[in-house]
Amino acid sequence: MADKKLVEQITPMEEDFAQWYTDVVKKAELCDYSSVKGFMVIRPAGYALWENYMKVLDQKFKETGVQNVAMPMLIPESLLQKEKDHVEGFAPEVAWVTEGGAKKLEERMCVRPTSETLFCDYFSKVVKSYRDLPQVLNQWVSVVRWEKTTRPFLRTREFLWQEGHTVHATLEEAEERTKQMLNIYADFTEEYLAIPVVRGQKTDKEKFAGAVATYTIEALMHDGQALQCGTSHNFGSDFAKAFDVQFLDKDNKLKPVYETSWGYTTRMIGALIMVHGDDSGLKLPPKIAPVQINIVPIQQKKEGVLDKAYELKSKLIESGFRVKVDDSDKSPGFKFADSEVRGIPLRIEVGPKDIEQGHAVLVRRDTREKIQVSFENLETETAKVLESIQNDMFQAAKKFLEEHTSSATNMDELVEIVNTKRGFVKAMWCGCRECEDKLKEMSGITSRCIPFNQEQISDTCVVCGKPATKMVYWGRAY
Amino acid sequence: MADKKLVEQITPMEEDFAQWYTDVVKKAELCDYSSVKGFMVIRPAGYALWENYMKVLDQKFKETGVQNVAMPMLIPESLLQKEKDHVEGFAPEVAWVTEGGAKKLEERMCVRPTSETLFCDYFSKVVKSYRDLPQVLNQWVSVVRWEKTTRPFLRTREFLWQEGHTVHATLEEAEERTKQMLNIYADFTEEYLAIPVVRGQKTDKEKFAGAVATYTIEALMHDGQALQCGTSHNFGSDFAKAFDVQFLDKDNKLKPVYETSWGYTTRMIGALIMVHGDDSGLKLPPKIAPVQINIVPIQQKKEGVLDKAYELKSKLIESGFRVKVDDSDKSPGFKFADSEVRGIPLRIEVGPKDIEQGHAVLVRRDTREKIQVSFENLETETAKVLESIQNDMFQAAKKFLEEHTSSATNMDELVEIVNTKRGFVKAMWCGCRECEDKLKEMSGITSRCIPFNQEQISDTCVVCGKPATKMVYWGRAY
Repeated sequence: MADKKLVEQITPMEEDFAQWYTDVVKKAELCDYSSVKGFMVIRPAGYALWENYMKVLDQKFKETGVQNVAMPMLIPESLLQKEKDHVEGFAPEVAWVTEGGAKKLEERMCVRPTSETLFCDYFSKVVKSYRDLPQVLNQWVSVVRWEKTTRPFLRTREFLWQEGHTVHATLEEAEERTKQMLNIYADFTEEYLAIPVVRGQKTDKEKFAGAVATYTIEALMHDGQALQCGTSHNFGSDFAKAFDVQFLDKDNKLKPVYETSWGYTTRMIGALIMVHGDDSGLKLPPKIAPVQINIVPIQQKKEGVLDKAYELKSKLIESGFRVKVDDSDKSPGFKFADSEVRGIPLRIEVGPKDIEQGHAVLVRRDTREKIQVSFENLETETAKVLESIQNDMFQAAKKFLEEHTSSATNMDELVEIVNTKRGFVKAMWCGCRECEDKLKEMSGITSRCIPFNQEQISDTCVVCGKPATKMVYWGRAY
Repeated sequence: MADKKLVEQITPMEEDFAQWYTDVVKKAELCDYSSVKGFMVIRPAGYALWENYMKVLDQKFKETGVQNVAMPMLIPESLLQKEKDHVEGFAPEVAWVTEGGAKKLEERMCVRPTSETLFCDYFSKVVKSYRDLPQVLNQWVSVVRWEKTTRPFLRTREFLWQEGHTVHATLEEAEERTKQMLNIYADFTEEYLAIPVVRGQKTDKEKFAGAVATYTIEALMHDGQALQCGTSHNFGSDFAKAFDVQFLDKDNKLKPVYETSWGYTTRMIGALIMVHGDDSGLKLPPKIAPVQINIVPIQQKKEGVLDKAYELKSKLIESGFRVKVDDSDKSPGFKFADSEVRGIPLRIEVGPKDIEQGHAVLVRRDTREKIQVSFENLETETAKVLESIQNDMFQAAKKFLEEHTSSATNMDELVEIVNTKRGFVKAMWCGCRECEDKLKEMSGITSRCIPFNQEQISDTCVVCGKPATKMVYWGRAY
């Protein structure tokens, strides 16, 4: 049995979801508060997850022709101000560097909150003709936004992300790239993180500062709140005009380029916790787990037990699994609980009796199901069980999403559902900003996205009753 | 023949080494100046190199138990000031953030110039007992130091690096880790970058701010100037005491930990250029080259030529090589020059006649040697040639290093050699700071390191004539 001493320190989810989240983050050693207010230290267990995110995404990006670069960390104020909507969106939340090398700077510079301005400045130098297009670039960096209230992974003054920036000869090509990257995010989130998402477009109110169109994937957390998981923006040629990024086309005419950007961040570690975690801690999908299998020797001081554990480890590593043996001097009960807190998908117990009988016991983190497997079948059975865990975790999350997605035909109904059952509510919208503003003011509910898969819930806007143009997913969001 | 139009834009090395360097950086598209003064944009070709550095080093680190983390980008002034020597060393060259979220900060924060203070602050929270030791952490990030004069890769206000930080229960263990990491740097630099290095210890004058001992690897550039390639520091317990990082040892006593840090940076892209490059451009060692083989089709519009080029590419990729086909509409001459500028180790030419005769022509970037190889032997011959290139490039650099390493027994001789022949000069030293200061003031010559392999050049200090204690490598450095 799992040792209670370890798990008791996690506040039950039903009692206080926010505290449960913080407890899991701390107990699973994903991150730590630092002495720098609003900033976090991403600890080895958290960073190993991010490394796996990066590895898979970077590979997927490169298969579509993405090249990585490194832009400066600081942006001079004059550069940030070149695009009007963009500076309005970001200027209030940036950190300003005003002194360097013991001198006051002639012009202050902000720590990048995002790098459209730097990429545009770069594109304006290297793009001359249609031969130089498209430029499909990306960087893996951290950005700073001076948030007032912060929560580990979800909202911090600094977070890690990738930001892709591309320029194209035509609007159609830019649009295609914008959607292509959104689909990469969606597929990764579903396939690797086992988190089902809704794909759609942001309303004008919710779109990125300076974008013509913002596409998004939205997921539902255990507390029924929505989380924006990844966004992809089509800027048209607004930025290009502001930064004078032009190219000589085949017809010998100077034309502005069309630009996109797209980002995926460490907040998706927060999503992993809030979609899959339980009162015993983290629950990691096998495909993304830094350690997939934790071998716990039972009565490890008895002759042959540790040797057997190491032997199984070697075999499983040879078969391509990520494995550790917990050979610490703690009790098995402590080790079980510890393995659960950290969310390791599969635990393998092996003791003197098991060795005698030629088998080990596999314990799934997600269902706690115990499976006896003979040593000779260990690799093949382990592969099957891990695949099941991955699939079952996705199906469980999908079921939750479906059960927490409702429809409403008027505003009272919408607000009532979000306040009681929570989750997403599908409802029609006239397309007016005023209706979104009104709903948000009254109830804190926001439009999450206009999904690509449209349905006709009713004929009139859920807020004003005028003819509807779109079906929208509504909800409360992180 | 290589097209002159492309190569003529590179200033000959003998004419102006600094300008040659800048030309190569620009023409090989490694990096670009940005609108942010003193900062650089690392372009795809430059970043792909850094990605290869990271991949190999990260793997080597992890094999020794290193775990990656992410610390905050900003350091509050009070934290920076905790260790006296450290703040004195870095405070004059940091960038200060004084405003955040449209408000003046209560305490200013610097953009990390290095992160000892943040790691120590973290260690003080997570290290409680001997069970928590060692902590062997690393991060891949960028840092900011407000340099007055800058040069791409070699000295910029922001550079990319990894910074490893560890804490240990004993001084011996810390010392062992310090040297272990220096040897990883040295082996990587020699084996992958084909750059021979001198391993040794920095003098007190040249060591890192706050360190008890700094170890270094030093290489020689084509112009005879030295470049510090990677450093590893043993801090003893000075930082631990300043930050109160203590642990309860097995004997139930509270003890300070012993700390190390070690770093390797993007300046090593600069080293690659200055050790191997020539008047035609970059020259990349095959083991680190993002593209190892550039297939150039000759008369590519003739039927079957491009198909053959793609076929060879597929075969070579299957054999594990990194290959591209230059199928642009440029002339072969332009493509040859372009391939040389970018330093691609091997060019494979294939035209209608070659296809008829069943062979391709391999052209080495380093020696320009041409080798005819039948299609059936292509993969095995290519492997051999790439291995030769790697070895020969290392041997050539080693020969240069040996030819530019002299000995001197008095100061006039030392200065004379450095001023004429340049390179390293081995000479004895009494161990006094004053002698180093005097030599630097008079001639700009600095101690590069006290090499691990000591020799007895003479009995007296090359500067003051008093009894010598150590043999030192002296030179001018970047």
